[in-house]
Amino acid sequence: MQPTVEDVARAAGVSRQTVSNVLNAPERVRPETRERVEAAIAQLGYRPNRVAQSLRASSSRMIGYRIEPVHPFAVGSIHDRLLHALADAGRAEDHHLLLYTADDLDGEIAGALALHRAGAVDGFVLYGLHAGDPRPPALLHHGIPFAAFGRTGHDEGHPWVDVDNAAGTAAATRHLVEVGHRRIAFAGYPRGGDVGERRAEGWRATLEACGLPPGPDLRGEDSLATGARLAAELLDDPEPPTAVVAATDTLAAGLLRGARDRGARLAVVGFDDTPTAAALDLSSVRQPIEAVGHAMVRALLNPAPPDGPPAASLLPPELIVRGSSCPP
Amino acid sequence: MQPTVEDVARAAGVSRQTVSNVLNAPERVRPETRERVEAAIAQLGYRPNRVAQSLRASSSRMIGYRIEPVHPFAVGSIHDRLLHALADAGRAEDHHLLLYTADDLDGEIAGALALHRAGAVDGFVLYGLHAGDPRPPALLHHGIPFAAFGRTGHDEGHPWVDVDNAAGTAAATRHLVEVGHRRIAFAGYPRGGDVGERRAEGWRATLEACGLPPGPDLRGEDSLATGARLAAELLDDPEPPTAVVAATDTLAAGLLRGARDRGARLAVVGFDDTPTAAALDLSSVRQPIEAVGHAMVRALLNPAPPDGPPAASLLPPELIVRGSSCPP
Repeated sequence: MQPTVEDVARAAGVSRQTVSNVLNAPERVRPETRERVEAAIAQLGYRPNRVAQSLRASSSRMIGYRIEPVHPFAVGSIHDRLLHALADAGRAEDHHLLLYTADDLDGEIAGALALHRAGAVDGFVLYGLHAGDPRPPALLHHGIPFAAFGRTGHDEGHPWVDVDNAAGTAAATRHLVEVGHRRIAFAGYPRGGDVGERRAEGWRATLEACGLPPGPDLRGEDSLATGARLAAELLDDPEPPTAVVAATDTLAAGLLRGARDRGARLAVVGFDDTPTAAALDLSSVRQPIEAVGHAMVRALLNPAPPDGPPAASLLPPELIVRGSSCPP
Repeated sequence: MQPTVEDVARAAGVSRQTVSNVLNAPERVRPETRERVEAAIAQLGYRPNRVAQSLRASSSRMIGYRIEPVHPFAVGSIHDRLLHALADAGRAEDHHLLLYTADDLDGEIAGALALHRAGAVDGFVLYGLHAGDPRPPALLHHGIPFAAFGRTGHDEGHPWVDVDNAAGTAAATRHLVEVGHRRIAFAGYPRGGDVGERRAEGWRATLEACGLPPGPDLRGEDSLATGARLAAELLDDPEPPTAVVAATDTLAAGLLRGARDRGARLAVVGFDDTPTAAALDLSSVRQPIEAVGHAMVRALLNPAPPDGPPAASLLPPELIVRGSSCPP
């Protein structure tokens, strides 16, 4: 006859709950107790069947996430931090993170449908939302729970967490004004994306509030080469700016390189505080990715009551000041 | 009565296998066919029970991986690439990646035991092995399948994949000799770690083969500040080297900064080709992380016959030459 969890608890001289903790959240159990329980499990040959448990609980205890390929041009990424935050937040709620890959957003949706239909996950975390994103309507249509990092503009029907992008570039711009810059440019993504426009708006509104005219507002793809080209363009301006707020660390790194190649100085603030920012001594706006991860997992696993609105959080970023944003 | 997979196949006019592909590997199915099958699934209300399938197949179709916190001092990481590679390789074998966190190696082992005992994963991929690593003996003792990225020196009992670290620094050193450097230093981890010693050995052996005396061999913790300090130390040498082979991109970034702070030139080659290397125009040794991920998943899911040795691969890295390693 198969040993039960009670047999293990009795043999180890602990409660059922402690045995359950050793199995499901071993870090919560003191090492000595854990060893005693594990010895009892090994001695009795106890093997709880998590799969059978899931059948009973109708919960996979898994959160699905599509991991995107590494962006070939980006000089760093916040993905590492986000994945760790999601896995860590999942642990606190007794869930694990299931990673899958897909070739595009349609593949991501198809993968999500298949995983959910198969009972392999309880819900999903979506990353990088944008206006017209097909994922929220598709998942809502199929009744699949999810929490989104970012907004599409039609965000009423599901929990979301976002970082206040405008507040980030506003802090960057204010800092550059405070250290003495008067002509401050912006370098961002091509026009139209929500995130890019919010980052531009924080810069523009802050200059206006300070009574300063906006410097040039240049856009281009998110690459080092574009940043270097934009630096050359800014330095050729009849009234060249002394500082630039960049929408990404990649553009910021390119701007720094472009200025250095011309032997010119240009104060630069980036966005994301990727590991590269420290290497370049680049001031940058840091997103609270750990808080984002925890808020998404909480919202996903503890849904709002049916008559209330889904959870929504707009979290403030933080400006990290380094050597690249010194006075003119 | 519950509809079966045959009912779905009949309604959609496809084979059972195609229905199974739509459920388990939707990217393999043409979009039109996928839509037809999904419509039939929705119409019939078919819900295959993956959990029940796992009970039958005694496979969770999951690979476990502990995600470490982001190293606070590192200027970049290969983790993003590794996770994507593992998830991608898993997809090809119809497996997903399960991420979990732990506070330390003992927590990682306890988590692995709990997940395996619970039937939540088929096996694990271990990262960052070192001599004396407690994970391989613990997992072998409990009969838990795993593949390791890196070696401990006692690697006979399990599949492993490693990158030829000595070949990487040898290529970096050869390149510096070829462009004209004659006094080439090494900056690495504190003595004793296998990876660090292999990287030092590639540098030392190559200089010897070229008939050049080894430059200073300096060690310190893997941080920007250490790199900058080592640059100052090298430049204060009575016979200062003109080039340095660094064991990491983080040390390399610090060396470049330290040399620049002194207004001196120092050719530098890093290791890992993190996204930061491109931003710094840093030559660096690139590990074939995609091939590593695929080789580990293959070795884990297709074990060697009991009378043969476990799979073992030593993969060659590639030197990426950029502006930081120009002639003296």
